[in-house]
Amino acid sequence: MARAKLTFLNDLVQAITGNERRGRSPRIADEAATRTALARPAAERLAAACDVLMGRIGDAARVAIAEQALTAYGQLDAAGRLGFFQLLRDRFGADPAAIRRAFAAYDASPTAETLVPLFETVEPARQTLLRRLNTAPGATLRLVQMRADLLQAMRKQPDLAPLDADFAHLFASWFNRGFLRIQRIDWSTPADVLEKIMRYESVHPMTGWQDLRRRLDPADRRFFAFFHPATGNEPLIFVEVALTRETPDRIAPILTAPQAAEPVEADTAVFYSINNTLAGLKGVSFGNFLIKQVVAELSAELPSLKTFVTLSPAPGFAAWLASGADPRAADLAAELDLGAWIHDAGEAARLKPEVEALAATYFTAARTRSGAPRDPVARFHLGNGAAAWRVNWPGDLSDNSIRQAHGLMINYLYEPARIEAQHESFVRDGTVATGAPLRAVLER
Amino acid sequence: MARAKLTFLNDLVQAITGNERRGRSPRIADEAATRTALARPAAERLAAACDVLMGRIGDAARVAIAEQALTAYGQLDAAGRLGFFQLLRDRFGADPAAIRRAFAAYDASPTAETLVPLFETVEPARQTLLRRLNTAPGATLRLVQMRADLLQAMRKQPDLAPLDADFAHLFASWFNRGFLRIQRIDWSTPADVLEKIMRYESVHPMTGWQDLRRRLDPADRRFFAFFHPATGNEPLIFVEVALTRETPDRIAPILTAPQAAEPVEADTAVFYSINNTLAGLKGVSFGNFLIKQVVAELSAELPSLKTFVTLSPAPGFAAWLASGADPRAADLAAELDLGAWIHDAGEAARLKPEVEALAATYFTAARTRSGAPRDPVARFHLGNGAAAWRVNWPGDLSDNSIRQAHGLMINYLYEPARIEAQHESFVRDGTVATGAPLRAVLER
Amino acid sequence: MARAKLTFLNDLVQAITGNERRGRSPRIADEAATRTALARPAAERLAAACDVLMGRIGDAARVAIAEQALTAYGQLDAAGRLGFFQLLRDRFGADPAAIRRAFAAYDASPTAETLVPLFETVEPARQTLLRRLNTAPGATLRLVQMRADLLQAMRKQPDLAPLDADFAHLFASWFNRGFLRIQRIDWSTPADVLEKIMRYESVHPMTGWQDLRRRLDPADRRFFAFFHPATGNEPLIFVEVALTRETPDRIAPILTAPQAAEPVEADTAVFYSINNTLAGLKGVSFGNFLIKQVVAELSAELPSLKTFVTLSPAPGFAAWLASGADPRAADLAAELDLGAWIHDAGEAARLKPEVEALAATYFTAARTRSGAPRDPVARFHLGNGAAAWRVNWPGDLSDNSIRQAHGLMINYLYEPARIEAQHESFVRDGTVATGAPLRAVLER
Amino acid sequence: MARAKLTFLNDLVQAITGNERRGRSPRIADEAATRTALARPAAERLAAACDVLMGRIGDAARVAIAEQALTAYGQLDAAGRLGFFQLLRDRFGADPAAIRRAFAAYDASPTAETLVPLFETVEPARQTLLRRLNTAPGATLRLVQMRADLLQAMRKQPDLAPLDADFAHLFASWFNRGFLRIQRIDWSTPADVLEKIMRYESVHPMTGWQDLRRRLDPADRRFFAFFHPATGNEPLIFVEVALTRETPDRIAPILTAPQAAEPVEADTAVFYSINNTLAGLKGVSFGNFLIKQVVAELSAELPSLKTFVTLSPAPGFAAWLASGADPRAADLAAELDLGAWIHDAGEAARLKPEVEALAATYFTAARTRSGAPRDPVARFHLGNGAAAWRVNWPGDLSDNSIRQAHGLMINYLYEPARIEAQHESFVRDGTVATGAPLRAVLER
Repeated sequence: MARAKLTFLNDLVQAITGNERRGRSPRIADEAATRTALARPAAERLAAACDVLMGRIGDAARVAIAEQALTAYGQLDAAGRLGFFQLLRDRFGADPAAIRRAFAAYDASPTAETLVPLFETVEPARQTLLRRLNTAPGATLRLVQMRADLLQAMRKQPDLAPLDADFAHLFASWFNRGFLRIQRIDWSTPADVLEKIMRYESVHPMTGWQDLRRRLDPADRRFFAFFHPATGNEPLIFVEVALTRETPDRIAPILTAPQAAEPVEADTAVFYSINNTLAGLKGVSFGNFLIKQVVAELSAELPSLKTFVTLSPAPGFAAWLASGADPRAADLAAELDLGAWIHDAGEAARLKPEVEALAATYFTAARTRSGAPRDPVARFHLGNGAAAWRVNWPGDLSDNSIRQAHGLMINYLYEPARIEAQHESFVRDGTVATGAPLRAVLER
Repeated sequence: MARAKLTFLNDLVQAITGNERRGRSPRIADEAATRTALARPAAERLAAACDVLMGRIGDAARVAIAEQALTAYGQLDAAGRLGFFQLLRDRFGADPAAIRRAFAAYDASPTAETLVPLFETVEPARQTLLRRLNTAPGATLRLVQMRADLLQAMRKQPDLAPLDADFAHLFASWFNRGFLRIQRIDWSTPADVLEKIMRYESVHPMTGWQDLRRRLDPADRRFFAFFHPATGNEPLIFVEVALTRETPDRIAPILTAPQAAEPVEADTAVFYSINNTLAGLKGVSFGNFLIKQVVAELSAELPSLKTFVTLSPAPGFAAWLASGADPRAADLAAELDLGAWIHDAGEAARLKPEVEALAATYFTAARTRSGAPRDPVARFHLGNGAAAWRVNWPGDLSDNSIRQAHGLMINYLYEPARIEAQHESFVRDGTVATGAPLRAVLER
Repeated sequence: MARAKLTFLNDLVQAITGNERRGRSPRIADEAATRTALARPAAERLAAACDVLMGRIGDAARVAIAEQALTAYGQLDAAGRLGFFQLLRDRFGADPAAIRRAFAAYDASPTAETLVPLFETVEPARQTLLRRLNTAPGATLRLVQMRADLLQAMRKQPDLAPLDADFAHLFASWFNRGFLRIQRIDWSTPADVLEKIMRYESVHPMTGWQDLRRRLDPADRRFFAFFHPATGNEPLIFVEVALTRETPDRIAPILTAPQAAEPVEADTAVFYSINNTLAGLKGVSFGNFLIKQVVAELSAELPSLKTFVTLSPAPGFAAWLASGADPRAADLAAELDLGAWIHDAGEAARLKPEVEALAATYFTAARTRSGAPRDPVARFHLGNGAAAWRVNWPGDLSDNSIRQAHGLMINYLYEPARIEAQHESFVRDGTVATGAPLRAVLER
Repeated sequence: MARAKLTFLNDLVQAITGNERRGRSPRIADEAATRTALARPAAERLAAACDVLMGRIGDAARVAIAEQALTAYGQLDAAGRLGFFQLLRDRFGADPAAIRRAFAAYDASPTAETLVPLFETVEPARQTLLRRLNTAPGATLRLVQMRADLLQAMRKQPDLAPLDADFAHLFASWFNRGFLRIQRIDWSTPADVLEKIMRYESVHPMTGWQDLRRRLDPADRRFFAFFHPATGNEPLIFVEVALTRETPDRIAPILTAPQAAEPVEADTAVFYSINNTLAGLKGVSFGNFLIKQVVAELSAELPSLKTFVTLSPAPGFAAWLASGADPRAADLAAELDLGAWIHDAGEAARLKPEVEALAATYFTAARTRSGAPRDPVARFHLGNGAAAWRVNWPGDLSDNSIRQAHGLMINYLYEPARIEAQHESFVRDGTVATGAPLRAVLER
């Protein structure tokens, strides 16, 4: 590193750490140094701060440097961010020579002892860097946002994937289930949290505060969310629940005309919307834990609940139908596209058996190239050990549902005594557990 | 894995996951399975649960298995724990063949892309296992205790060190500064937390609740601790502070006769006891962050504070003196061992210059083989960027201090404007920053 | 009391107290008794419960009876409530014979000793009854609502005033300043509280959540409210504050185009809306305490604030002008009613001196029959010791303000050093403290 | 009031209110005035402040004056307090002429309307004064302490009773059940609250923190307390509960050798110590509410609990025995005084029938002059509707119990279904409800 750069770094550290002490005026000299350092372009400040963080600075001083680095990052535009990601990937990787030495030792004697230094040399330096950035106040949420930016950038620059692997690795560790806390969301929840809930609801979008209250406040409704201590009032995932007397087959009554039935009379809990919130946490799984925990919470509060079931969209149904995977599909898709069934009950009744039959096929037989169920929501719930219980058509007349699924919905059933066996069968050989109503359609 | 074992594992999973649902009676069959599974020895249950955790079990079911594993671990004796640690090291390591393959690819083209699979194969499987164990409620504290057991076991079995490397790696990530919260400890703190504070105070042990209150409650005293969300009310480190009008040179007045001076009149904050609490967090550094944060908190609350200083023990002084490293040391040690100075002020006055001279040498020149200061407390504070400000003799007449340090104490000065430069000099070439009083002794 | 009634009362007590134990099924016999008792009309149940509450029932059982009484009250219609108020007034008064005896003893020897029994006989029994009703969970808010109903009923039945005196007496004691806690209201306040704030804002009504957020959330805004522990999340009074660089003369910029200036740059705190919320707390004064407390809170948070001032409506100005109290008033009122000034700046400029002159007269000289300032808002602020500082015209172009005040607004200045003297002058001889701008108008 | 006095009062008000604004330096002139005013003797300042509080000072300014008054009160010695109480009684009473006028109007037409002004003139001015003192921060607890001082003073000056009537009247209103909140006390309760619990425990005094923890922390123990929002962390009353498998007959096992049985196995909750804490709240009844509430809380938490019973002292038994009220008593008392039974089981067995017989008589037949049970603890529990269930001898070998009750204890049974009927019989004609074991003794 050239002498000029060193001086700049020193100035930065001095400027940053000399002025930290709250409530004291910085000395004139410090101020000048600060101004000089902060006048540099954000990208330059960020790169310098990263170098400082990886250098022999004191642990405590790192907090201030990390803060400066994240501030500088926040001032970058898309091009600047891309440059930074490339720098992270290229400058803070691993040392091939060191890896080769460590591997040679391991290769000669592959033991637990020789694995330790190999692991240490193989871990990219940027993992350490990210951990050090995380010491700044509020850093965790900003790092999650940084990864969201990265995922965005990767659409054009897939060669940033190695950097993403580091984020994924760290986040899986930081957002471990053991660190999450579940919290009920209701009408006495702080408004800023409710506002986030509204913004993040994408399965059945909300039109505003009245809509939120209609779904949240009646005695037969429940919302639950996971929070992480380091990301404060940011919900990481949330689920919306309606308590009913039977398993619903349409979403509209739930969204628009809630009956404020007493919750104690309900025997069914319907999970009708599950939303992940932070794009930057892609791949960190919360949903299965949340459903399991909510089942436990509701069972404890309302022992009369017997059935835990979803009312879920089928976002891949229209595309599958259009793909012509099934010989009957083309004709049906054409009829459905006409849309007469939407307003004509007779027409809907006429099409219903055919739609149900193809829907049953879709959920039980349609597969991706890798053999997983073609429907992404199905992958989630079946992977959790739920059963595909009943197809519902027409279940959702919203534009979005008609476009993606011709209005089709489905219930997945969570039966605690069967979850584990169904999960295992699904993982072992892809077996889709089905409910009696769905089987009846298949056997027609 | 033999068929019998598989069946047992299945029973275990069934037994465990089938009975989880709160508030429901397990069915008879489940009960029998549970009893059978739970009747196995703890070591066997633990090993089986670890296998299940690494298998294709659903994420959510892992919580219950992890809980069972930790319970079984808690039932092991020392021999059982040793066996488990060896199993962790040997069964949940890495796959040499996979590593060789991944290395070959990396070696051919050492890029960020080829590093990713190499990192994944090199990371020992037990890191994943520990992360999965951590999903159980309250698991984090139990894993910290598990590592404390491991460190204990390593005294006789140093070949467990590779396993310890994994704990250290994970804990450094989980106990990141960004996840800690500082909290003031006072007389309105919950009693169970105060009890832990009492138990963990080892620098100047407390004799009971009255003693605690005497140190904690007066207007010129402050305690601060770091907590982690996942370990609840367990203080991870805490510092005891006295607010004074000048830098104290003896510990007794602070411990036994606190003047309840108004804190606003104080200009000096004395950090007179810093305690790490959990042996299992060895190597995870909190102390520097805590001191920095407490300086910030106190500065904000009491702007009149000008000086932040410790009153610290010198635990290696007696041993160094006895080692004959300095030609004057043998004679002095002999005289100090006589103990006349303890009760005879004249004798103390006579010895004082010599003790101070050797103490000054000890703190500035005595080194370990690796070149670090010989005194462990000095290593901590100098490494944080503090200066060795003044030696105090006699400073502490407790048995412990007389045995370890002939009663010697020292003040380390934390001067915010100099901390970073002093830290850097210390790290670069081992320079020990000194205060005017210490320099005066050196120059005598 | 007839035998039949006694039996009914006994049934009621038995039914109520026998079934209280949570989590137990009532015995069959109890259920029948309960059903019989609860089948009586609400008015009858309420009257019976009041009798029971005043009888020799155990203290603890009173909680359940009070609960039943308040439930029955909640089922009454307006006529039923009127009947209940009359019953309260007539059946739970005082005993004339006992009063005469106690007075005779006092009259013979008017000492502190003889005053005690006189006070006890003179206190209406309904005060005891209200205190006993208040033992039920959540009772306080329901009693406040009961008084709101009473005030409503008194419009037609002024002879209920004696009952109102008891409510007023008790509420003054229960809602003592010492029991209130101030709380800042912001965007992280629970949504149900914010919803109440929106509903209760009547000075400058809000149009919805976006409007609320615009007023509440920017860095240069503050809301504060008083709460009482027994009425939970119900704000009793709240004030809306804008932090500015000078004293504003129009409300529109504050309501519609908030500049998110940094609060630290502000030197002026503008109290632009103060709302009492619960009609049932009429006559219990909170506003003066709240303003004083908010001045203290803001001064502590933002030492740069120098000026504490209101921007207030003048709700009686139009009526006073129309009353012809001033010879110039009739012509001016006629011109203002034409409304040309609203959209024609030249016209407004032409009328401005005359409006200001009459406004100045209105605030300083217009009096009610009892000699108080004619403007109700003026009575509040001047009574608190504020000064009428400056008249602002046109200050508010809302329909409401144009109707009540031809768009006139006024600033009242709270100058801590003068508040007490100005309050005293105002109370002693009605002196209205004025500010320099207002005096300049008067002296034109 | 003389002119000089008026000036002093003005100075006081100016001094006090001019300096309130936080964070501002008082002007020089204010400082001098403050010093002059504060240099007056406390009694003089207190009397002046009371006059100011009753004068035409602004509501908000009262907070500061009330604060000064309470501070001055705190500086008085016993003589000063006595003087202040007399001043309160004599200067802040009622106006005989006004009372006579109001009575004349009432006497002429004794209606609800004429009662209102009579009530207002009869209420002593000091009630208003106390309400105004209560506006200061933390005033409520200080007023409770003031009444404790008053009760102390009344031992020598019974003519202060009228003042006490005002305190009693206000406290009954302020400490209404509806304002109290119950809270469980356990080992995670703040230490300052636990310290108060230890200090206030007088039935079975605690020897320190270990003793507290032994009673509080095991899984089969519960403490509950009432708190009031205005007295913060001060427990007003608390009860200590042991969960057992049967009704205990001796206190020692409960106090010294707690079995940490699982609470779920218990079928009996034993209330073995109930303590009121603040002497100044004499006559404000909490105990019955607390027991009722604790029964509800425990029933909800542990549905297996069937029996709610006390293990209570009999503090008047020895005195009653010594009083010779029963012909057999003198001989028995003499034998008991010998104390041989304490260490000689045979001797205890010999005396047991006779002690039990007299104890049964004591609880069921011994009465005060006014007809109430002679034992004060019996009056409390029987008045709550409990039954005298079983006498236990020897039940408590502590010095205190031997001195007051020759070691006798008793269980009172709270049977929810019978509480109300037993309460009513007790209030109506003094009927003492008894349990089968006690009746067996009576019928021997």
